[in-house]
Amino acid sequence: MSYNLLKGKRGLIFGALNDKSIAWRVAERAYEEGATFVLTNTPVSMRLGEIDELAKQCNTIVIPADATKIADLENLIKKGTEYLDGNFDFVLHSIGMSPNVRKGRKYDDLDYGLLSQTLDISAISFHKILQACRKHDAINEWGSVVALSYIAAQRTLYGYNDMADAKALLESIARSFGYIYGREKNIRINTVSQSPTMTTAGSGIMGFENLFDFARRMSPLGNATAEECADYVITLFSDLTRKVTMQNLYHDGGYSSMGMSLRAMKIYNEGLEYRDVKNDKTRS
Amino acid sequence: MSYNLLKGKRGLIFGALNDKSIAWRVAERAYEEGATFVLTNTPVSMRLGEIDELAKQCNTIVIPADATKIADLENLIKKGTEYLDGNFDFVLHSIGMSPNVRKGRKYDDLDYGLLSQTLDISAISFHKILQACRKHDAINEWGSVVALSYIAAQRTLYGYNDMADAKALLESIARSFGYIYGREKNIRINTVSQSPTMTTAGSGIMGFENLFDFARRMSPLGNATAEECADYVITLFSDLTRKVTMQNLYHDGGYSSMGMSLRAMKIYNEGLEYRDVKNDKTRS
Amino acid sequence: MSYNLLKGKRGLIFGALNDKSIAWRVAERAYEEGATFVLTNTPVSMRLGEIDELAKQCNTIVIPADATKIADLENLIKKGTEYLDGNFDFVLHSIGMSPNVRKGRKYDDLDYGLLSQTLDISAISFHKILQACRKHDAINEWGSVVALSYIAAQRTLYGYNDMADAKALLESIARSFGYIYGREKNIRINTVSQSPTMTTAGSGIMGFENLFDFARRMSPLGNATAEECADYVITLFSDLTRKVTMQNLYHDGGYSSMGMSLRAMKIYNEGLEYRDVKNDKTRS
Amino acid sequence: MSYNLLKGKRGLIFGALNDKSIAWRVAERAYEEGATFVLTNTPVSMRLGEIDELAKQCNTIVIPADATKIADLENLIKKGTEYLDGNFDFVLHSIGMSPNVRKGRKYDDLDYGLLSQTLDISAISFHKILQACRKHDAINEWGSVVALSYIAAQRTLYGYNDMADAKALLESIARSFGYIYGREKNIRINTVSQSPTMTTAGSGIMGFENLFDFARRMSPLGNATAEECADYVITLFSDLTRKVTMQNLYHDGGYSSMGMSLRAMKIYNEGLEYRDVKNDKTRS
Repeated sequence: MSYNLLKGKRGLIFGALNDKSIAWRVAERAYEEGATFVLTNTPVSMRLGEIDELAKQCNTIVIPADATKIADLENLIKKGTEYLDGNFDFVLHSIGMSPNVRKGRKYDDLDYGLLSQTLDISAISFHKILQACRKHDAINEWGSVVALSYIAAQRTLYGYNDMADAKALLESIARSFGYIYGREKNIRINTVSQSPTMTTAGSGIMGFENLFDFARRMSPLGNATAEECADYVITLFSDLTRKVTMQNLYHDGGYSSMGMSLRAMKIYNEGLEYRDVKNDKTRS
Repeated sequence: MSYNLLKGKRGLIFGALNDKSIAWRVAERAYEEGATFVLTNTPVSMRLGEIDELAKQCNTIVIPADATKIADLENLIKKGTEYLDGNFDFVLHSIGMSPNVRKGRKYDDLDYGLLSQTLDISAISFHKILQACRKHDAINEWGSVVALSYIAAQRTLYGYNDMADAKALLESIARSFGYIYGREKNIRINTVSQSPTMTTAGSGIMGFENLFDFARRMSPLGNATAEECADYVITLFSDLTRKVTMQNLYHDGGYSSMGMSLRAMKIYNEGLEYRDVKNDKTRS
Repeated sequence: MSYNLLKGKRGLIFGALNDKSIAWRVAERAYEEGATFVLTNTPVSMRLGEIDELAKQCNTIVIPADATKIADLENLIKKGTEYLDGNFDFVLHSIGMSPNVRKGRKYDDLDYGLLSQTLDISAISFHKILQACRKHDAINEWGSVVALSYIAAQRTLYGYNDMADAKALLESIARSFGYIYGREKNIRINTVSQSPTMTTAGSGIMGFENLFDFARRMSPLGNATAEECADYVITLFSDLTRKVTMQNLYHDGGYSSMGMSLRAMKIYNEGLEYRDVKNDKTRS
Repeated sequence: MSYNLLKGKRGLIFGALNDKSIAWRVAERAYEEGATFVLTNTPVSMRLGEIDELAKQCNTIVIPADATKIADLENLIKKGTEYLDGNFDFVLHSIGMSPNVRKGRKYDDLDYGLLSQTLDISAISFHKILQACRKHDAINEWGSVVALSYIAAQRTLYGYNDMADAKALLESIARSFGYIYGREKNIRINTVSQSPTMTTAGSGIMGFENLFDFARRMSPLGNATAEECADYVITLFSDLTRKVTMQNLYHDGGYSSMGMSLRAMKIYNEGLEYRDVKNDKTRS
């Protein structure tokens, strides 16, 4: 399936690790839709993942960059626009990581150095990319920028920890910079708040599978997959959504607007029932 | 416990049926806090419930009125302000009923005559009360009006049916009239979005008990009770909240800001486990 | 510009009056994108407008229907699916009218018969369309339904009157029915909250031009036009947005996420300055 | 006016600079309502302001602390609870400052070291206070914590710069920690999103006076003053609001729910008119 929605467009894609990554799927779909782009990730992620394969598949290059480092970003922008022979029409930010979560620090026992890293990697990197692009005037008029977010920015989920705060900050940066970049260059900036997704990052979260199951049964259309997310992001990069900006867009099968579905409640009811059954056994 | 927060204030309270009603608890607390007020309900509800008892307890009268009928409301306002010898300082709207739900009509099989009734009883009645009060200039400067709502106005719950739409309309009316009544007479209008509550109305809903259990385990502070809701409403009627208006205020132990709690997830996990156990039995 | 985004899709479009209508633009763009569809409007609107011209242009027919009348809708569905030789893949609801506004009734002097009409025409009609389609199983699996809304559903604008409440109700119906139709047939239902638009309906509103100017200067990308709205709606009808449902999507150049822009504030400042100038003249 | 709403309660108040500060007004009102508390601020703010006067007036002490330094906070908690002879029942966080704004760095030219400071001072300090209190079990069961916020967390205002992001982060921290502290100790955490206020911090913002005027005319009840904010915060510290948590509560005269008021639009219209007048002069 290809509509040539991105024909002639140039892009920059952060965060493809392996074929489970949303960024990976966006790259594949952008390629199908006629875009050219460069890929980037940190040197560590490049080693851990298979981004070179993706580059081959999409007939492009990978430019290593740590998105928290201005010098790396400037190099990336320079080399990227040179390689593409033109400025970017779209940028995807799909970066997030919490060293506090990795080190097992609970939210009421955060290490503040690590919190700074969480925010820097997962949110402030987005500002750095935008500011660097703006300084080098590297995004074309009517360009489109998307960052991936999660509903934890609005509603607390146990175990999501300081990533929730990072996502709230990320969405705020999208709005704040969306105003500036919009009025100056008609560039739009949005976040896509995606269903829990079976990516390498996602599956690492404690209890992820059952949370995924809950979200699936809550959402009338089920959870959105990485492929579906890529489709959606393509529409946001296309010329058909030029006046959508500073928005947080839920791509979640309806989850965000659900209070309780019959399907999810059934499982919950069985949980209550099971507890009764087990209590009965304990008593007898 | 009494702080004299409503000393010298006069009020009008809709919707007390029996001692489980939130309106009943608000009346009791308003009385403790030094207010005088009149009670009102439909003739049918007056027969079904024990509002006369409440009136005795609060040393006041009940004036029957169907809040969907302008003539009834005008009579209520006239008699109420006469009895109190002054205009109202606060008004509570605690009215909601769906004939579609009662008749077992599903949301994709609504009777539109009944839908009109749902909206009229549960939402438009609020506009009628406000418009009638305004025409008769029956609310004092800096008065406070509260209507009770539910999170179904924002998030769909299976089985809540057209009451969700009624609550959305109710909250919109609070905003729309809040602008008018605010700029003209400094009167504030808010809705309180309350936890599921073990009232006569609440417990009638299919599967209410388990939904109540889910909300309780999701909310870090548990569900808010009718008594606690009354306490909160008292603060909104007091002079300490004069600049809060056109808001929908969640009084729900934190439920509305939760994505998933550990406590609720545990039950859900057991439901999934139970399903596995039962499937195993089926297989063997 | 055409991407064949709607190739092979069939649709139903409510509310095209003349070439300023958003529905008109959606029809044109849907046609360009390869869709076939039927048009519909009330007999009165058909006489007032030029919908026959649009039908000719899009090589289709107009089936008259009053969207508040079940019999009309059933006839429309029957004839529409017959004409298209298949069920609908997309439906556009672009209907809104307040008899209270037309008759100059203020929001604190509403006629409740007219309010019922406002709600019936502008919001409940959406439910009626969905319920009728569902009963006749007239929308295909993974179909997409869009209704046009306005930010007045969330924030009060002087003079917008009971249309604000109608839009709040409309958005609630989209969520409520989105759950049902989603879980049963994977059909998605969303509202698009559009910038103030220079349609025949829009320009009729008192003080519309200056409000339009304010919105334009507040929005970093300016107001979205009817043509741009059509582009956006096309993406929502396409297969690329299948997991977006029960959402209210702002298509407004960023307006909804703005607190204050420099451009709008400049005009406001000049207004304050002018007032000073005029006061000075009065004094001297 | 005193209701003894905080009789017997102990508290901790951050951020009183001078009698224009909201924290100052909260201290005064808390004292009137029967609370005992300690005041704190940074050594610099203590020198710049008149907090010692406030301490005298409220019969208490000031304990200097930089809220970004854990050691300072631990000392503050230790000395504060010793002085009060008991744990805190309420805490007020009224701290915010952007070195980027001070140094005139625009939002697309941020210094990232300064951004870190903005976030640390204005948002992460809130987490540090909560985490330190939790480690020392320094807040009583059913205690109440409030931080002051601003609508810039949801809607972008020109010139508010990285403080918008800080406020978004602050509100997220309130939710995230509200879950933890709620489930463990029934402690509630909310933010109050206050009208623009004529504090020393507020008036420093470029163009503040006219923005204040706009907000005033938009809000049906006008802007909320520091005194009124203090009244509202008192209700949130009282036992009457025990089930309100993880909320961002607008205390703004209705501003947040307004799209456009007649009063504000009049000034805007005059600005447009003035521009026409001036253009005419230029031409003739």
